[in-house]
Formats: sequence, structure tokens, C-alpha cells
Amino acid sequence: MPYEPPMDVDEFRRAGHAMIDWIADYWSDLEHRPVLSPVEPGSIRHALPTAPPEQPEAWASIVADVDEIVMPGITHWQSPNFFAYFPANASPESVLGELLSAGLGVQGMLWATSPACTELETHMCDWMLDLLGLPDRFRSSGPGGGTILDSASSGALVAVLAARERAAGQWRMNELVAYASEHAHSSALKAIKIAGLLPEQLRLVPTDDEHALDPDALRALMRDDLIEDRRPFFVQATAGTTSSTAFDPIEAIADVCKDYGAWLHVDAAFAGVAAVAPEFRFVNDGLHRVDSYTLNPHKWLLTNFDCSMFWVADRQPLNAALSVTPEYLRNAASDGGAVIDYRDWQIPLGRRFRALKLWFVIRSHGAEGLRAFVRSHVEMAQGLHRRLDTHDAYEIVAPTRLSLVTFRHVGGDAENERVRDAINESGRAYLTHTVLDGRTVLRAAIGAVRTEPRHVDELFALLDQHA
Amino acid sequence: MPYEPPMDVDEFRRAGHAMIDWIADYWSDLEHRPVLSPVEPGSIRHALPTAPPEQPEAWASIVADVDEIVMPGITHWQSPNFFAYFPANASPESVLGELLSAGLGVQGMLWATSPACTELETHMCDWMLDLLGLPDRFRSSGPGGGTILDSASSGALVAVLAARERAAGQWRMNELVAYASEHAHSSALKAIKIAGLLPEQLRLVPTDDEHALDPDALRALMRDDLIEDRRPFFVQATAGTTSSTAFDPIEAIADVCKDYGAWLHVDAAFAGVAAVAPEFRFVNDGLHRVDSYTLNPHKWLLTNFDCSMFWVADRQPLNAALSVTPEYLRNAASDGGAVIDYRDWQIPLGRRFRALKLWFVIRSHGAEGLRAFVRSHVEMAQGLHRRLDTHDAYEIVAPTRLSLVTFRHVGGDAENERVRDAINESGRAYLTHTVLDGRTVLRAAIGAVRTEPRHVDELFALLDQHA
Repeated sequence: MPYEPPMDVDEFRRAGHAMIDWIADYWSDLEHRPVLSPVEPGSIRHALPTAPPEQPEAWASIVADVDEIVMPGITHWQSPNFFAYFPANASPESVLGELLSAGLGVQGMLWATSPACTELETHMCDWMLDLLGLPDRFRSSGPGGGTILDSASSGALVAVLAARERAAGQWRMNELVAYASEHAHSSALKAIKIAGLLPEQLRLVPTDDEHALDPDALRALMRDDLIEDRRPFFVQATAGTTSSTAFDPIEAIADVCKDYGAWLHVDAAFAGVAAVAPEFRFVNDGLHRVDSYTLNPHKWLLTNFDCSMFWVADRQPLNAALSVTPEYLRNAASDGGAVIDYRDWQIPLGRRFRALKLWFVIRSHGAEGLRAFVRSHVEMAQGLHRRLDTHDAYEIVAPTRLSLVTFRHVGGDAENERVRDAINESGRAYLTHTVLDGRTVLRAAIGAVRTEPRHVDELFALLDQHA
Repeated sequence: MPYEPPMDVDEFRRAGHAMIDWIADYWSDLEHRPVLSPVEPGSIRHALPTAPPEQPEAWASIVADVDEIVMPGITHWQSPNFFAYFPANASPESVLGELLSAGLGVQGMLWATSPACTELETHMCDWMLDLLGLPDRFRSSGPGGGTILDSASSGALVAVLAARERAAGQWRMNELVAYASEHAHSSALKAIKIAGLLPEQLRLVPTDDEHALDPDALRALMRDDLIEDRRPFFVQATAGTTSSTAFDPIEAIADVCKDYGAWLHVDAAFAGVAAVAPEFRFVNDGLHRVDSYTLNPHKWLLTNFDCSMFWVADRQPLNAALSVTPEYLRNAASDGGAVIDYRDWQIPLGRRFRALKLWFVIRSHGAEGLRAFVRSHVEMAQGLHRRLDTHDAYEIVAPTRLSLVTFRHVGGDAENERVRDAINESGRAYLTHTVLDGRTVLRAAIGAVRTEPRHVDELFALLDQHA
């Protein structure tokens, strides 16, 4: 018996228009909502029926429960008062791109399973090189190329796998050693563990007084490892650390990697997109020497999660590490070798059409708009930096190179926790902490799509009030 | 200077309504479009400007290019005439759930970063146990629990990592051996490679004449491995193989795994959701004995990609394998231990609010609707099976246990390729091949949201015409 679905195409139109309006209303109202959800653990589940419904429920009652049950448990990442972690931009254009991707519902695992999904993605990876002034070694016309992954964590993992592949044959797994600074993102250690190495096989390299990796210390560690028959195979450097936007010296690190034959991966998850503005191109320093590179338009370039770019200078070891071809995935285009099959660039087999939303964003804003967007946040951050720098109760603890301000209350760790909690519990802003040089410090990451100077003024007023 | 974005909230309303209408029109028109995109490699890229735009472009011209440039390169996975691979359902409700998730733009990496994202996900994992009659060992109230991942490939990987973690300390990496049948999904080998084992460390277990794993052969392999000081640590069994919906005998395999201390993971990516109907609960046989289990609502349960359920009987080794906590992710709720942080159940750190769309689907259709949906496809498959079984030019090569019909032209491999290509090139249907018992065979996977008996009639007419 054919199934009669509850929502036909006309009902989808009505429900879809209403959902668009719901989102538009939400965005309009967003700045008045408490940023950090105040609910207690278990309270959302408590409001939900224990068992799933036997009968279909009316769409109106489902949508009503979004307001009733879900919304109290939302921490508003799109709020202009969100200064925690790094931003997670969901611009209107990118949301429409995600919607279209879902409506088309195509699988981009192979070129053949939707050629446009693969080719638009390749094209966007090349466009991003132009937009950001990145080296040609990542261009799809050469031995390298780019792809869009879900996250920089996955980018770190596939970089480790490609490096491991390049080292395989000569070296054994338990001889391999990887390196990252103590300020590298936790994804470095997670990738190392997933790839089958022990945590001890990742060396934490000392940093200088601006929290950047010390290349001389890296060289000394590699030398000692080699003497003891361990094999340096991978370095994860960071262009813009999570705690303080510190920039590891890529070129000097590349010199060391070259001497020891190690793969150099650069994580610029947050900071990389700043290169859209020529005055911030310092974030690209040394990238013409690296093996792989990742940055996230889903953080600071107006594209909703997930959209993480990953480029590689030589795709061969990457594809060798990740390609497994059963008969049921074979097809003439792949066998012919003239196409890219992006399943061989990532962990999962299936993949969404993520390039659509990035295409929408780049075209709707233009290079000029993207530049103005990034500049506006850097300007706001500099303003906050100046005010905190001259405030009696606070001190700046790291240079504000882009849009992250890292600072602390001079009263000590407990005072910083108190200020953070007071502001977050007020609901009027949300910021998070980190530890630098053994001390608890606060971070204000300015970069939400709707953050304007008045929101940063309000954050400063809160900091002043709770000082 | 504040940035003036090109699309304000009112323009988003207009563009959003238009995008909803575009999708509604697309779905209405879908059955008349050629299913498999006929474009040549490079033609989509050729139609795109080489360089990104400097100035913002008008939204209307961007959307016009979707029709003009993107659509010719789309293979229509949502077409009612799509019978390739397995289906990738994008029901209207799930698309609205994806839209809402993008509009909220929250990160569910930690409970604290949006409690509703975590708690609705946990609740949906428990609801699915009820809907499908799955064992209580996977319920969140015990030592196990579930999560929503992007794909069953990632599920296979995290299962391997949890198994490796459980084996660590006692055994060395190069001693470990994993097992799967020769008909297991390619994700098994991919997971083994990613986890740092050599391809030789995955043994392909012989199958019986219905392509199900032979548990006696598994036992013999494990015994031999143990004698040679290799350690059986992981078995991936399949409930519904890709090539022919074969079901490995889970209970007998669990006996072997118990004797040798190996982790048993079951991949039911496609078939698992059939258990929503009591008469198909055979797909659950033996699951009360397994360590982890995965199935994909994004294949056959009306929920757009990505939405893959993963359950584990004991979450401890999984979390131990995947948890890395830097200071900047610490928070009171996580430190208190009363909440789930789903970042510790997956490869990436960030995660979308995927539970919303599954919640929408389950409530809008109800258990009754989901049952009727699955039954309708099984009925259509049985009808196609009967007609092919009595056709002179075709023979059925495997039992049609659910909605996949595996068959072949009696004229040999080349004839099967000819029939496949003729049908696919006609644009009127799309099916793919596999190899069973050394012979090329065809697969008709019936399960698209809009497939009705008349579309299967048309597929049969095409098969008859090209016989």
C-alpha cells in the first residue's frame, strides 16, 4: 500500500515560509535573550514525553514545542552578545545554502553521484586561494588541492594520516613522533590518538613569551628523538591559537621540518580567513612551505557550521591513506581518473553539498564585503583592548592581533572566575576563560554576525561593573 | 566601521520564502528530470568565473545560477526513479529541521554550549530504542548510550577506537586483528587503516551461500591468530549488506567474540530502521549481545543526510579513546560529571543540532507512519522481485529480505553492464551494480521518499525493454 506522507508539497510551502519567518523573528529578537542557557541538567529531557508517539502529531504542535521545550535550552551562538570560544557565523545567505543543500539531498561521495557537488567544491577551494592570497601549491590544477570538511579537527586528523602514510614503509608506527606547541588546539592530540599513536608520541614544544612555538626548541627535540631512533614525522603549527591568537613562526618551523623530513600542517581554524584583508595577510606567512593547511569559514567568514577548508600540497599520500574502493562504488568516471572523488579526502564516505553555502556567501558579500566584515571585528576588538588596557582592574595578557582580546582581572584566578560567572549568569553576554602562563585569563572573541560596537560597549560596561 | 551586510532580516524573509518555493517546485518536478547527471567532467567548473567576485552580487543573479549552472550537474538522489546505492531520504520535515538547526546555529560540542542540543539527542537515541525494539543495554540510563554521528563510516571508526582502547595496555597495536566478512562495507577497512592498523590486520571471513559471515570460519581464524600470538580485538558484523542485504548471524558471532574477548560492532546502516515494523524485527536478532550498533535514519527513515545513530553498551572505552580536555573547554557542568559532552563520542569537536530533524520526523509521522513507510517499499521490492523472477532474461541472485532486489541478466557480466548503462543513460531511472560470487549483478534499492508503485513499474518496463 503506498504511504501517504503527512506533509505534502503545499503544506511544505506553508510550513517552510513559517519556519523562515520563525528564524527571521529569532534573529531580530536575539540580542534580548540570555546568551548562555540557564537550564539545569536534565530539564529539557524532563519536558519531553518518555516514549515516542504512536500516531502522527500535528505540525503546529511540533513547532510550538520548539518554543516551549527547546528554546530554554539554547545557548545563543548567533547572539551579538556572544564572545565565548570563537564565533560560529550563520549568515542569512549561508542558512539558505544549507536549506538548498538539504532540499537537493545529494550525496557527493563520488564525482558521479553529483558532479556539481564535487566541481563547485573544487572551485570554491580555488576561489578561496585567490580571496586569501594563499600559495598556488594548494591549487587544484597541480598535485595538491582543497576540500571542505566538517571541522579543523578532521583536518588535523587527515593531515596526520597523510603524514603517517608518507612515512609508512620506512618507519614503524611506534617509532613515529609528532610535535605541536603546548598552545596547539586539542585536536592535535585527538588526531594522534585516533591515528593509533600513544599520547607520548606527541611532543609539546616550548613556546616563547608570546606563546608562539620556539623553532630552536623544536629542532632540539627532533635531534634528540632521532638520536634515540625515533622518527619525527608530523608537526602541527598554529596560525592564531585558541587561547591568545599566537602565531607560530611557520617559515622557521618549515626549515626544521625540511631537515628532518616531517610533514608540516598549519591550523588556522579561526585566524586564517582574516587574510581576505591585505593588512592581515601576515596570517599567511610561510604557507608556501607547508604540506597542509586548514581554516574555518564556519568560524569567522559568515558560513554556518560545518564548513572547514582543508588544502594539501600533494594529494597522493592523503588519497592513499583514505581510499578504499569496493565494487559497488566503482564507476566509469572514477575508473577514468579524470575526476576527484572527495570520499578519498575525508573520514566518512557520504558528504553533503557544503560548497553551495560558501558560494552564496562569497558572491553575496563579494571580496570587498568580506574584507569589511573582518575589519569591523578587528576594529571593535582593538577598541575593547584599549579600554581594558587602561582599566585599573584589568590587564591585557597577549597582543590583540585580530579580533580576540585576552585579558585578566588583576585580582587573581578566583576574581577572573567570579567576573566570568557574573557576566555569564547575567545573560547579557557570554565569554569563556583559558589558562596562559599558569594563570586563569578571560577571552572576548568578537566576531558574531550581528555584533556591533554597542554590543562591545555593553560588554565593557559589564566588565567594568563586575570589576 | 560597522559592516552593513547585503541581506537584512526582511530580505532574508523574501529570499527564504522563495527558496522554500524553489525546493517545493523542484520536488514536484523531480520525476521528470534525468536521474543521473549527464554532464562531462569539468563542465560545471567551466561555467563558473575563474576568480571570485570583488563586488557583492545581487541575490537574484546568484539564485539564477543555481538553475543555470548547478542543476545540470545534479544527480537526483530524491528522484522517485532513484534506485542506486541505498536511498538518502530528505523528507520535508527533515529539511525544515535542518533549516532550523542552521538558523539557530548552535554548537553541541559540550552540554553547556547548548543543553537542548545534547539532551534532545540523548532523548532521540532512547526513543529510537523504543521505536525499533532495540535492547536496553543501549539506553542512556545505563552504562551505555547513543549519539548521532554523520555516517556509519564514522560509527565503524569510533567502534574500532573503543575496541582498541579496551585492548590497550594488554596488547600492542601490531598484535591486534580485526574481522569482517568479505561483504562488509568498505568502511570496515577504512576504519582499520585510519586507526593505525595495517590492511592485513583485517581478516576477511568467508561467507555462506547467502553471503552471510560463517561463524565457524570466524572461530577458526581467531584460533589460528591466537596460536600465532595475534590478538582478536574487533569484529564488524553486518545486518543487511550493501550488495544483497545479507544478515550475518549475530548471536553465533557473539558467542565467538565472547570466547576470544573481541568487541562486536554491528553495521545495520541501511536495514536497521526496518525494525520499526514488528514483522521485520529479525534485523535485531542477537543485538542484546553486541558492543556497538549503527544505523542510518538518513538512508531509509525520512531524515536527510547526515543522521547516523550509534549506540554503545559501555561508553567508558569510547569516551576514553576520544576525550581530550584543554582548559578552554572546561566548564562547571562538565566538571560536575552530570552531563554528556558529545564531543567525546565522535571524531570532530564541533557538532550540529542533528536531533531536531529526527524529532520532527518521528513526531510528524508517528511510529505508525514510519512503519507504513518502510512496509510500502518492501512491498514494492517484493513485486519487482516476483516479476524479475519469472522474466526470461533475468534471475534473482539473493533473497529480497527488505527493499533491495539483487538480480542479473542471464547473458553474463557484459550484458548486465549494458542494461545498467542503457537505463542510466536514458535518464528515466538510475541503478548501480555490484559483484556477487564473482559475477556482475544489478541492484534496485527501493526507498526514495517519493517512489510509488508506478515508478517501480516503469523500472521494470525499462529492464524488460533493454533485456
